[in-house]
Amino acid sequence: MDTTHDPQRRSFVASANGHADFPIQNLPLGVFSPAGGRPRGGIAIGDSILDVAAIATLLPEAARPAAAAMAAESLNATLALGTAPLRAALSALLAADSARAEEVRPHLHAAAGCTLHLPARIGDYTDFFAGIHHAFNAGKQFRPDSPLLPNYKYVPVAYHGRASSIRPSGTAVRRPKGQRKRPEETAPSFGACRNLDYELELGIWIGGGNAQGDAVPIAAAPGMIAGYCLLNDWSARDIQAWEAQPLGPFLAKNFCTSISPWIVTPEALAPFRIQQPPRPAGDPAPLDYLLDAADQAGGALDLQLEVLLQTPGGGPFRLSLANARHLYWTPAQLVAHHTVGGCNLSPGDLLGSGTISAPTPDGFGALLEITEGGRKPVILPNGEERRFLKDGDTIIFRARATREGCVPIGFGECRGTILPAT
Amino acid sequence: MDTTHDPQRRSFVASANGHADFPIQNLPLGVFSPAGGRPRGGIAIGDSILDVAAIATLLPEAARPAAAAMAAESLNATLALGTAPLRAALSALLAADSARAEEVRPHLHAAAGCTLHLPARIGDYTDFFAGIHHAFNAGKQFRPDSPLLPNYKYVPVAYHGRASSIRPSGTAVRRPKGQRKRPEETAPSFGACRNLDYELELGIWIGGGNAQGDAVPIAAAPGMIAGYCLLNDWSARDIQAWEAQPLGPFLAKNFCTSISPWIVTPEALAPFRIQQPPRPAGDPAPLDYLLDAADQAGGALDLQLEVLLQTPGGGPFRLSLANARHLYWTPAQLVAHHTVGGCNLSPGDLLGSGTISAPTPDGFGALLEITEGGRKPVILPNGEERRFLKDGDTIIFRARATREGCVPIGFGECRGTILPAT
Repeated sequence: MDTTHDPQRRSFVASANGHADFPIQNLPLGVFSPAGGRPRGGIAIGDSILDVAAIATLLPEAARPAAAAMAAESLNATLALGTAPLRAALSALLAADSARAEEVRPHLHAAAGCTLHLPARIGDYTDFFAGIHHAFNAGKQFRPDSPLLPNYKYVPVAYHGRASSIRPSGTAVRRPKGQRKRPEETAPSFGACRNLDYELELGIWIGGGNAQGDAVPIAAAPGMIAGYCLLNDWSARDIQAWEAQPLGPFLAKNFCTSISPWIVTPEALAPFRIQQPPRPAGDPAPLDYLLDAADQAGGALDLQLEVLLQTPGGGPFRLSLANARHLYWTPAQLVAHHTVGGCNLSPGDLLGSGTISAPTPDGFGALLEITEGGRKPVILPNGEERRFLKDGDTIIFRARATREGCVPIGFGECRGTILPAT
Repeated sequence: MDTTHDPQRRSFVASANGHADFPIQNLPLGVFSPAGGRPRGGIAIGDSILDVAAIATLLPEAARPAAAAMAAESLNATLALGTAPLRAALSALLAADSARAEEVRPHLHAAAGCTLHLPARIGDYTDFFAGIHHAFNAGKQFRPDSPLLPNYKYVPVAYHGRASSIRPSGTAVRRPKGQRKRPEETAPSFGACRNLDYELELGIWIGGGNAQGDAVPIAAAPGMIAGYCLLNDWSARDIQAWEAQPLGPFLAKNFCTSISPWIVTPEALAPFRIQQPPRPAGDPAPLDYLLDAADQAGGALDLQLEVLLQTPGGGPFRLSLANARHLYWTPAQLVAHHTVGGCNLSPGDLLGSGTISAPTPDGFGALLEITEGGRKPVILPNGEERRFLKDGDTIIFRARATREGCVPIGFGECRGTILPAT
């Protein structure tokens, strides 16, 4: 019996009890360095981080290999081993009634004094386009009569992104330079991006691997997923508009992608799985390789996603409140599609969901949508206006999973501040 | 004085003298394993491979760190250190008049008995679109009136590719499955790719690195390039046509990319640099960040590129003969563009040039162009026809640099055989 979600379970780490993100029911994995120490794997518990490898010998045997592998500077090996037994063991070890509390305490570090790193070496990063309301809103600006292209409801559309420029929350984001051309200009000019934007996405960490040439069947796809994070796909809209034909976005995206540093596991999110929302009447059924009864019944995530803007003049102000349930495809469908032609995934690969927008403007996941391409500025509560991001602006994403009878969990922040172009 | 290209220089490795690819004037770097041995760095000399780390102590001090780093299973550290002093030292060590020949001989392995691997861990892979005749020919099939999009002559167009599925020459290529939809069909179907193609490209290995946010100026870009290889960007045309809007190709390309396993250094190719061919009258000048006098004067490569097809019924038959001089942008321009928005490159990253086609059909770099999208089959000398590749077909790329007064050098093969879909 899985007791890790028992709402009565409390931790001897007092700050965990009632913690918005990291109660004992969550236990996400990350890589941290204590002041003056080297990077290592840890789990978040309340306002503390537990050095997991340091307490590996306190764990039952089934959890020990994954725990010991967390001595490394990245979690790739841990993700490959699978973390469900580790999470269950840590839940018992950190519980209020733990017999080993005094042995554990010396290995708890105050999170406020630690630096958080990328949790894994990201081999390849893929960005999907599974937020249908975003696809519609973005498409409408270029094709008012047919915002969604004919392939959208058949193909989980995606493109390869840049792995090297993914950074953990808190890393400042330099405004990129590049070629921009306004429609009325006859030639492009070179300079700082004028239309800098964010995109609210869910990140999906891969824990399994498949051999090149071997597709992962949809029923096996959930087993490939090690966890989730928040992902900000910073986007230079003016650069994108000029460069992206015919091969897709490139410099408009590859200057930086920000992620929240904690890997929230599928086990932690299990109570918040929901039925994949039924497709609107008239939409085609997914092709067979994307269709699985269990995935349709419980493969979507009920996860509230919030975007906040802090300007040098005030805030943070909420820009939108969306939910991962608005994705047109489940995470398992994204994995099955990615591999159906034989592409090999590896532990530590990262997928982005695509921008997640709610159907209504208060839940749109990018300024491109909120301001209709910059035409209608958003007015902030302090009177400031934004069409796109200004230097000094900070974008903050938060996630929260709630369900009656469950202790809510969160993801921690994904935050980035815009620095002026050099 | 650089004597490494002295046409009189011969090697005590007899097979090197007159070797089509690997005379002593070349000395490309790779990773090999001798029968029963572990992977390690080596250089190709004639029909042999020298285990470089094993002879590092025979080299002058300036060459020793790069040589010692070749004990590793990948050349990333060697590429980061730079290989010019190493190549010069090996040229002397392997020369016919070398005093150390007897000490070197035990560390020469017959190439025929070795396995060749990817030469580096590829962090990120980017594919450009710099072959203007290919861009024109491919664009013509979708937009007969405006084959080149308005950005083509301003932007070195590129997209991110999949690093995990890049394989060394000789690895068989599984025909991918995926969604395909013919124009006359109302919905897509799922099945094996019907229009499987190759693309002839030059691969560019990155040896330097730049910090995220810092652009590499065009004058510094050549210093970022560690070498070159051949690259086959296998392409599933039917999958591509259906999936690639609006974000570019994905499953159509990521099932496999093949490369020749030897890194041919800029120093080895120095005699074969030529002026960047002048742009046709009316073409815009490159924007300032892409313009450098030295690069325009000698930044292009005169490198003959050949495509051969071997079928189960015969061959190999030549499908085309092109030249890297037909690229619209120099390698330095690709690097400068890639980093201009702040994207960070690292040693071991790989760039593809884009398909290289000559202006005439005998030099087109893909079947898409040769057969006009499959409409006009190519008739092989043995009477067979091909619109696209069939199972059992083998595609072989070769490269050859020649110049009067110089010993010609080659790249070795990039070869792949199509296996039937599973």
